[in-house]
Amino acid sequence: MSEVEKKSVGIVHTQTIRLIEPEQPLKLECGKTLAPIDIAYETYGELNEAGDNVILICHALSGNAHVAGLNGPDDRKPGWWDIMVGPGKGIDTSKYFVICSNFLGGCSGTTGPSSINPSTGKQYGLDFPIITIADMVKVQKILLDKLGIKELLAVIGGSVGGMQVLQWAIEYPDFVKSAIPIATTSHLGAQSIAFDAVGRNAILADPNFAGGQYTDEKGPDRGLAIARMIGHITYLSEQGMREKFGRQLRNSDSYNYDINAEFSVETYLDYQGQSFVERFDSNSYLYLTKAADYFDLEKDYGSLKKAFAKTKCRFLIISFASDWLFTPVQSITMVNALVANDKDVSYCDIASPYGHDAFLLEPEVLGSFISGFLDATHQPEVKKNHTGKRIQEHAQIHDLKQAHRVRVDYDVIESLIKPNSTVLDIGCGDGELLANLIADKNITGKGIEVEQDLVLACVNRGLSIIQHDIELGLENFADKSYDYVILSQTVQTMKNTEMVFTELLRVGQKVIVSFPNFAHWRCRAQLFLAGSAPVTKQLPFEWHNSPNIHCLSLKDFDQFCKRLAIKVEKKIPLIKTSRSPVRFAPNLFAEQVIYVTSKE
Amino acid sequence: MSEVEKKSVGIVHTQTIRLIEPEQPLKLECGKTLAPIDIAYETYGELNEAGDNVILICHALSGNAHVAGLNGPDDRKPGWWDIMVGPGKGIDTSKYFVICSNFLGGCSGTTGPSSINPSTGKQYGLDFPIITIADMVKVQKILLDKLGIKELLAVIGGSVGGMQVLQWAIEYPDFVKSAIPIATTSHLGAQSIAFDAVGRNAILADPNFAGGQYTDEKGPDRGLAIARMIGHITYLSEQGMREKFGRQLRNSDSYNYDINAEFSVETYLDYQGQSFVERFDSNSYLYLTKAADYFDLEKDYGSLKKAFAKTKCRFLIISFASDWLFTPVQSITMVNALVANDKDVSYCDIASPYGHDAFLLEPEVLGSFISGFLDATHQPEVKKNHTGKRIQEHAQIHDLKQAHRVRVDYDVIESLIKPNSTVLDIGCGDGELLANLIADKNITGKGIEVEQDLVLACVNRGLSIIQHDIELGLENFADKSYDYVILSQTVQTMKNTEMVFTELLRVGQKVIVSFPNFAHWRCRAQLFLAGSAPVTKQLPFEWHNSPNIHCLSLKDFDQFCKRLAIKVEKKIPLIKTSRSPVRFAPNLFAEQVIYVTSKE
Repeated sequence: MSEVEKKSVGIVHTQTIRLIEPEQPLKLECGKTLAPIDIAYETYGELNEAGDNVILICHALSGNAHVAGLNGPDDRKPGWWDIMVGPGKGIDTSKYFVICSNFLGGCSGTTGPSSINPSTGKQYGLDFPIITIADMVKVQKILLDKLGIKELLAVIGGSVGGMQVLQWAIEYPDFVKSAIPIATTSHLGAQSIAFDAVGRNAILADPNFAGGQYTDEKGPDRGLAIARMIGHITYLSEQGMREKFGRQLRNSDSYNYDINAEFSVETYLDYQGQSFVERFDSNSYLYLTKAADYFDLEKDYGSLKKAFAKTKCRFLIISFASDWLFTPVQSITMVNALVANDKDVSYCDIASPYGHDAFLLEPEVLGSFISGFLDATHQPEVKKNHTGKRIQEHAQIHDLKQAHRVRVDYDVIESLIKPNSTVLDIGCGDGELLANLIADKNITGKGIEVEQDLVLACVNRGLSIIQHDIELGLENFADKSYDYVILSQTVQTMKNTEMVFTELLRVGQKVIVSFPNFAHWRCRAQLFLAGSAPVTKQLPFEWHNSPNIHCLSLKDFDQFCKRLAIKVEKKIPLIKTSRSPVRFAPNLFAEQVIYVTSKE
Repeated sequence: MSEVEKKSVGIVHTQTIRLIEPEQPLKLECGKTLAPIDIAYETYGELNEAGDNVILICHALSGNAHVAGLNGPDDRKPGWWDIMVGPGKGIDTSKYFVICSNFLGGCSGTTGPSSINPSTGKQYGLDFPIITIADMVKVQKILLDKLGIKELLAVIGGSVGGMQVLQWAIEYPDFVKSAIPIATTSHLGAQSIAFDAVGRNAILADPNFAGGQYTDEKGPDRGLAIARMIGHITYLSEQGMREKFGRQLRNSDSYNYDINAEFSVETYLDYQGQSFVERFDSNSYLYLTKAADYFDLEKDYGSLKKAFAKTKCRFLIISFASDWLFTPVQSITMVNALVANDKDVSYCDIASPYGHDAFLLEPEVLGSFISGFLDATHQPEVKKNHTGKRIQEHAQIHDLKQAHRVRVDYDVIESLIKPNSTVLDIGCGDGELLANLIADKNITGKGIEVEQDLVLACVNRGLSIIQHDIELGLENFADKSYDYVILSQTVQTMKNTEMVFTELLRVGQKVIVSFPNFAHWRCRAQLFLAGSAPVTKQLPFEWHNSPNIHCLSLKDFDQFCKRLAIKVEKKIPLIKTSRSPVRFAPNLFAEQVIYVTSKE
């Protein structure tokens, strides 16, 4: 058995069952009814005794139920997410029971516009009722009920699959324990609708479309190919296309000087268009893009905050930095709405050059996030001393930054936090302090961190962690929503200190801040006597490579608090060798200091 | 006469003349010949006696010769760049004589694929030879020769028009005094080729295309409309579309639940497609997008540096921040190639939400740049004491930043510069120092500045100015290419100090750097005695709002130079009240300091 075979789910068969009988048609969101409804699905792995290891995968626009493995011994092409689903992979089929069904309106076994309309005996075509993402999810729920599934450990999907994930989390809060919407959005923007509309136009303009009543032999193939080409460009990034194709010519080094396709990227698109025509149905394309265009959680529920209000699951939201179809900003909007509802949400914008399609092309990083999150959800004890392989690598690579992250103040900060309180840790690093606080003091906490590898470490620990730059403020965190906000060894590296502080004091009952004292006697002496910018153990950097962009002392911070009417509840000047506060002339002798502050 | 009429060129008529007679066909780049060739053009303003006020405008893909004014008393729609061209406008027709011709291959009066093929008596269609940007420019040159034009003050154009501008500057170095390529590129990337290819596919897939031999009554209208829709999306930005359309519905507040166009953006695209079909020819669309795809200065000349090697004109390169079709990076690549050739190039990336189409929609800002550059080129004396309206506004708005820019060290720095030398001023602000040096010492200079309004001020002064963040280094500035590189009052605000300094010393024979002395006695006293971060006249900011992210003293800089083996040629410690250097204990008494440094 080869390594590839070992990591494959092997040979699987797509199953099809009748979900909706002709006598009891399904009421759709558009008001019409549909019956019968058949559904095609595949499963991988095994349901455990507790029935708590079920993962539902929702596929994207052009996907189908065949996620992983091969459909027969002669099948050469594994399922569309084979790199992610299998034994030991991101979605580990040796642990989890994985289900995926072809969605309603599809053309790969589930009832859709190419199915036979029982009232005419011909294919539905444009007589098929408009379906929505909510309809698709409703049908998936009926399937799971039929299969005897009692709860979902996770619903996972990218792009249009991610929309279904969101719909699942909202509509079935008691059924779903966690949701991983990837590279998706709560609604399409004007640009995405525009691309979809042009694609539909191309199909409708094809004379072979014949009002939707085309045949297998003579369909709107050219129109569908053009629609696919447009879509395909939006799935890639400019950088990705440049690196893959550039201006490479198909055949020679010099131009042919004729009107035909000549650049490699043209040939590639032609191929994408052609191969799509062979496996996809034009009517389905019309209906499915329309379903995506209609999807709008804000419109459906009044606001995104209201949409998420009744969710109960953990969320891991993932975007990709180069995705310009469903952009990181669209994911962040959802994160903000979940935060405003005080939900358990983690978020990372994964650095990738592959654009929207990165959810199919970044198995390693994405797989690490998914597997860490699934494990933490399945076995939810917070890992106090966890350090994964990636974090160790990270520490080596970024030793300077890591050095800066050495937190001699953690013990003292921990002693200041009351048990069972709520804590927001800004710049939480790999989540050590938060994990300790959860384990030792039973707090409820959330972390904010910029670096992707540290965000992953926090996900692996089972923490709720949001990738975010605090310099942008804390939009959507409610006033006084945390007992404590912690800012450890960060204030001296911030640009917008005043704005950030105002934000922290708005969100936290108390803000605990620690920083190195720039007026420590060693610093003073270096500047006064030697005339040099201070370099000490607490301020270990030379002037030109320091991440510390502000120099401040206890006195400076006192004045800052006074000016902004911030109440200093406690001030704990520290030297490294002792946890006891410095009592005499702290601004002279303290190497660092911890403040507990508050504001009405 | 209304204000609008006063600022209009009034009624103009498109003229058409025969440029190429059947007997003497034009040899095209593809190797084929073409004859006859007629060309349509318009002119505005008057040729002056010196014949030195001629501006050629090159239009973009779907443009034509009708740039400004109306084509008749009943004409309701002014020319495509009427907001830019007219008396008192960005391209001022009361000063300049402006010409624009419909390019070769077009469908608005100039010979193109919809013209009659003399050998068949039918329209050319796909028998028209492939034309290139170089062919278009060649034909424009023949027109100008025929009109008796001896030189061009400027060639201006956006998008595909910008490609013609680049070709003009390269092919006719002695004919062109300045070039303003806007929102353009030296070659299309894979993504742009892909969009063009899909558009062409849509036209070719339309059964009415009939191999290019369609009629006016029955042409590939749906295909052309789809091509235009795709193009149109790429001309806008995601932000622009979101703000203009969002998810607004055409008719009602609720969905129709049918397959037809329903969102406003769909209706808008339908309209754009339809109106384009009424004024444009499908064959022209095929040939012109192909010409754009073929355009590749790197391929044609071996490299972009080689392409620009023989140019003699001044360049003003403009990009728009939200343009994702021809991105700012593509403009910067051209700027770098011109810099590597030591050419007179200015560059600004204009902040605009309008995407690629911003060149048609930002008349105020773009007009200021163009008019300032044209005036400075037409009357090339450097303006020493120029402060334009915008700069005064800027000073009011950004008073803090401006305060930071007060340069008490300018006089001393000027005294250090030898006459007739070359100077690169990093962070040159509104160009005061450079202008003084040019006026007083006859230096040749270039400025680098980040802020758009200050870049504009420099353009208005007639300086060569590149918008650039020095933290990114000085890629493509050759080793030792300037006698002096000046970095005035900036070192303490930089993040990558060591890298930047290494770059400056690579590019300059000497680097003159000035900064505030953090070890001045007032600073020392404040930290030593009061324990506060210093706030003085030279360091006027509190710790939390300071742009000065590094604190350094003379001693610190001495050590920095020693470590990097930088030779300190001169060190001039200064106090504000005197231009004489501080002689006693400079690290204690100097408020600021000027260093002259160098490195082998």
